Amino acid sequence: MLREGALKDKTIIVTGGGTGLGKSMARYFLQLGANLVICSRKLPVLEATAAELMDETGGQVLPLACDVRNPPEIEAVIAQTIGRFGRIDSLLNNSAGNFISPTERLSYKAFDVVVDIVLKGTYYFTLAVGKYWIENKIPGTVLNISTTYATTGSGYVVPSAVAKGGALILVKSLAAEWAKYGIRLNALAPGPFPTKGAWDRLFPEPLVKMMDPTSRIPLRRVGDHQELANIAAYLLSDYSSFVTGECMTIDGGEVLSAGEFNHLENVTSEQWDEIGQAIKLANRPAKEG
Amino acid sequence: MLREGALKDKTIIVTGGGTGLGKSMARYFLQLGANLVICSRKLPVLEATAAELMDETGGQVLPLACDVRNPPEIEAVIAQTIGRFGRIDSLLNNSAGNFISPTERLSYKAFDVVVDIVLKGTYYFTLAVGKYWIENKIPGTVLNISTTYATTGSGYVVPSAVAKGGALILVKSLAAEWAKYGIRLNALAPGPFPTKGAWDRLFPEPLVKMMDPTSRIPLRRVGDHQELANIAAYLLSDYSSFVTGECMTIDGGEVLSAGEFNHLENVTSEQWDEIGQAIKLANRPAKEG
Amino acid sequence: MLREGALKDKTIIVTGGGTGLGKSMARYFLQLGANLVICSRKLPVLEATAAELMDETGGQVLPLACDVRNPPEIEAVIAQTIGRFGRIDSLLNNSAGNFISPTERLSYKAFDVVVDIVLKGTYYFTLAVGKYWIENKIPGTVLNISTTYATTGSGYVVPSAVAKGGALILVKSLAAEWAKYGIRLNALAPGPFPTKGAWDRLFPEPLVKMMDPTSRIPLRRVGDHQELANIAAYLLSDYSSFVTGECMTIDGGEVLSAGEFNHLENVTSEQWDEIGQAIKLANRPAKEG
Amino acid sequence: MLREGALKDKTIIVTGGGTGLGKSMARYFLQLGANLVICSRKLPVLEATAAELMDETGGQVLPLACDVRNPPEIEAVIAQTIGRFGRIDSLLNNSAGNFISPTERLSYKAFDVVVDIVLKGTYYFTLAVGKYWIENKIPGTVLNISTTYATTGSGYVVPSAVAKGGALILVKSLAAEWAKYGIRLNALAPGPFPTKGAWDRLFPEPLVKMMDPTSRIPLRRVGDHQELANIAAYLLSDYSSFVTGECMTIDGGEVLSAGEFNHLENVTSEQWDEIGQAIKLANRPAKEG
Repeated sequence: MLREGALKDKTIIVTGGGTGLGKSMARYFLQLGANLVICSRKLPVLEATAAELMDETGGQVLPLACDVRNPPEIEAVIAQTIGRFGRIDSLLNNSAGNFISPTERLSYKAFDVVVDIVLKGTYYFTLAVGKYWIENKIPGTVLNISTTYATTGSGYVVPSAVAKGGALILVKSLAAEWAKYGIRLNALAPGPFPTKGAWDRLFPEPLVKMMDPTSRIPLRRVGDHQELANIAAYLLSDYSSFVTGECMTIDGGEVLSAGEFNHLENVTSEQWDEIGQAIKLANRPAKEG
Repeated sequence: MLREGALKDKTIIVTGGGTGLGKSMARYFLQLGANLVICSRKLPVLEATAAELMDETGGQVLPLACDVRNPPEIEAVIAQTIGRFGRIDSLLNNSAGNFISPTERLSYKAFDVVVDIVLKGTYYFTLAVGKYWIENKIPGTVLNISTTYATTGSGYVVPSAVAKGGALILVKSLAAEWAKYGIRLNALAPGPFPTKGAWDRLFPEPLVKMMDPTSRIPLRRVGDHQELANIAAYLLSDYSSFVTGECMTIDGGEVLSAGEFNHLENVTSEQWDEIGQAIKLANRPAKEG
Repeated sequence: MLREGALKDKTIIVTGGGTGLGKSMARYFLQLGANLVICSRKLPVLEATAAELMDETGGQVLPLACDVRNPPEIEAVIAQTIGRFGRIDSLLNNSAGNFISPTERLSYKAFDVVVDIVLKGTYYFTLAVGKYWIENKIPGTVLNISTTYATTGSGYVVPSAVAKGGALILVKSLAAEWAKYGIRLNALAPGPFPTKGAWDRLFPEPLVKMMDPTSRIPLRRVGDHQELANIAAYLLSDYSSFVTGECMTIDGGEVLSAGEFNHLENVTSEQWDEIGQAIKLANRPAKEG
Repeated sequence: MLREGALKDKTIIVTGGGTGLGKSMARYFLQLGANLVICSRKLPVLEATAAELMDETGGQVLPLACDVRNPPEIEAVIAQTIGRFGRIDSLLNNSAGNFISPTERLSYKAFDVVVDIVLKGTYYFTLAVGKYWIENKIPGTVLNISTTYATTGSGYVVPSAVAKGGALILVKSLAAEWAKYGIRLNALAPGPFPTKGAWDRLFPEPLVKMMDPTSRIPLRRVGDHQELANIAAYLLSDYSSFVTGECMTIDGGEVLSAGEFNHLENVTSEQWDEIGQAIKLANRPAKEG
């Protein structure tokens, strides 16, 4: 989508960048000219991805092991990134974890595991990079991968909802506070963007058939990774330099399902004919209350 | 809910107060000691309601014909209310109209009819009463009957959504601007509170079976008129004197259905057992991205 | 506000109930007939409060030491509450902690301290009580003390914003998921309700003069504790039985300050006369774009 | 921002496209390959703009007189557009009107003038184009120029707030309902993007000095027209094909000013030193409640 070179010479750290959507976004950033650092707990996966992406794009990718729950490991990633590329321009908080389960079946620890990765990992990394930017007067950009249920809430994924909800408020809070340093923070709330592997783990066999999301999405399809990568690249690039504190939803209209009468989609055209006739007879709008 | 006499000596104008929810709220205001003016286009209906409510509660009800789309009629209601009760303390914007229909089947005029009643009627009446309050240094209160789709939007009721959406922004805007005069404005967003008659008109026969709202309401029931009347009385009373610009939702959780995974309610306990087993084997949260 | 006995025979746990707003709400619940458990880390403070409130109201108050960051201590509170009062009807998540500071001056640990009290404490306690309610088929109610910046975000209180933001999404998520058990969860977002002591600590001397919140509040005053207690009691009582997943703001209109032109409050009447004249000459609305 | 030809062969109608932001967006659409129709009530202005833009870009621009409050004139624009370019792909609802004034100084008619242009004009045009798209199975896109106060509300611009608020709900409602036809609707909420001429009219002399918006914008500057044009082009293009019902804010963080403690920006570094010392002595987070 963006013009060639839109991220030229930008150095971007992508947490959870070894697989899935993180990998897809990383690929696009490379195509647009960025230098990449990808990190997660699994170095072999990262190394394979780095090799693959460098081969594909000709760009530079540095794979680094990092548990985002551990601030010294984050600080090591920052130091190594600067060592390799000279500076850091952007951070993409993409690491995540989730349990799909009735909440009353979860332990305290299950909550903690997800909150520690998603929320603590995000604020540790953002704080560490932010301090570096402020000290070095770099107008950096942060992008959080959020979800629509970070705003609406959702049952059955409650630890993730809580953690993503807190992380979104981090974005809005620091966007206001750190704007004076030229630092911008934004978020993306994707609907379903299936990833081979991740989706299989998220939705075990018994759920798969119930989980076909296309039936609940007004546009009647799931998202394509490139569609998400397009807007992620925009929000990290200088093209979005007047946008901060914003969470952009890209979900095919899924979150709009809250509208009270949207389920009338199931009324047939013939039924509407009858209803229209009835209303015409009454010759006035139906009155509420 | 409120203590006896909570609205004693308050004079409240209720638009659309002859039937349905408007009538139910009016009844409760009377029980709490208020003087009432009810107005709509149908004087005979209002007169019957006034007689019934006065008989039931021993309170005072003045029924007045008024088309809220016509400012001079609104001004006449204001003058007659002051003539009869000496002053006006509160305005309940409750008049409404609706078409349940695919939007592409509607005419321009169908939009206008609903917007003129719901939105123009609300701002005409609020402006007229507000000017009177400001001139007379009365710290009045306004309550709008809104809906959850005034915020979320909804297909199939688009003229009403548009009009209620605009009217809700009126509340938030004037709550900020007129707070310096002590004037407060709030709104209520009710979910389904069925009214014999209104519901029959809103949902013609072919729709009735599709419209059973209880299946979509997390609390598995529709609302009771008294539940709405309770919070309406609170928002008009002095008990809420630090609340302004607020829209309170009372919908059994209906609007929460937007949460992306709430439909997993349909997974059985046995299925969750299997899923839990699968996750336990994996011994870690499912990873996204 | 509520009728006498509105909380009769309800047993309510109030975390952080020894001082400030928690104490004020606890007092009102007792006046309405509830049995109270108050808990925090400081048993002597709780015991003094319990003695004072029992003396004042004639109600029953059980003070229990509890660090909400520690699930076994929460489970002990639950067991002792059931031992003493037979059951638990409601939970008020009120414990809080905050740092007022530029975010870049904070350590990772400062974030953790606040998040552990406010967010983890809330989900641990809610999970523990919820499991008890589900097992015992009790339609309990939860109320979270939130803030407006749990939705808007705010600089200079970022750990608290993040934690309160996550806790609010807990409310919305479980309101949807646990409605089928009859469990309701709601939240309150108070603006400034000063408490001797708490405010002194929150706003050290150099800040006090900058912090006078009344200048930023449209209604030009701070809140009174009883105003908050009124609506807290309503949301925990059966009167609100169709309300769930809702966050009610009670802030004198403070959050409305976001409105782009509200600062025009500073234009004088004479200036508006001039402007009006200019517009009248132009005889049409100013056009944007 | 977008790749060359991103809007190639798309025909876009821009209401209010003769001046200001509408003209800037139109110019960019032309540069990206679109055919343009610009319409407003002032044909000579449109004709001059059309000539200028065609000269600059080499693209095609059809200027058409149209009062958006008059459906037959809208239908004529649609017919002429199809006559000239064969079809319509996109509609940019950009016409606007505003009064900056205390609300109690406004007449009923002042409200009507703004609501008729902004809200009725938007639903008339959207309805007319939507019917054409549905009938012709064209997956068109609509973009509304909204404002942040369409969501937050704002005093002193209440007719515009009300109208823009309603128009935003139109977008969300039809995005859900018309997604099945492949039609997408989105909105943009710009902060201050000054336009010579428009701003002079919006902010008469006495206001100008009070209105410098940069002081209220976290990023400390106003927007540049191209920044808005970039994201407008994206939302109308096929690159955003999984985005619908979204309102994207581009305001330098202005709307974030609602955050309760963001005004602490005025505390100096030395004051923070003192405060930090005080908190360190206390060795714990300040406790609320």
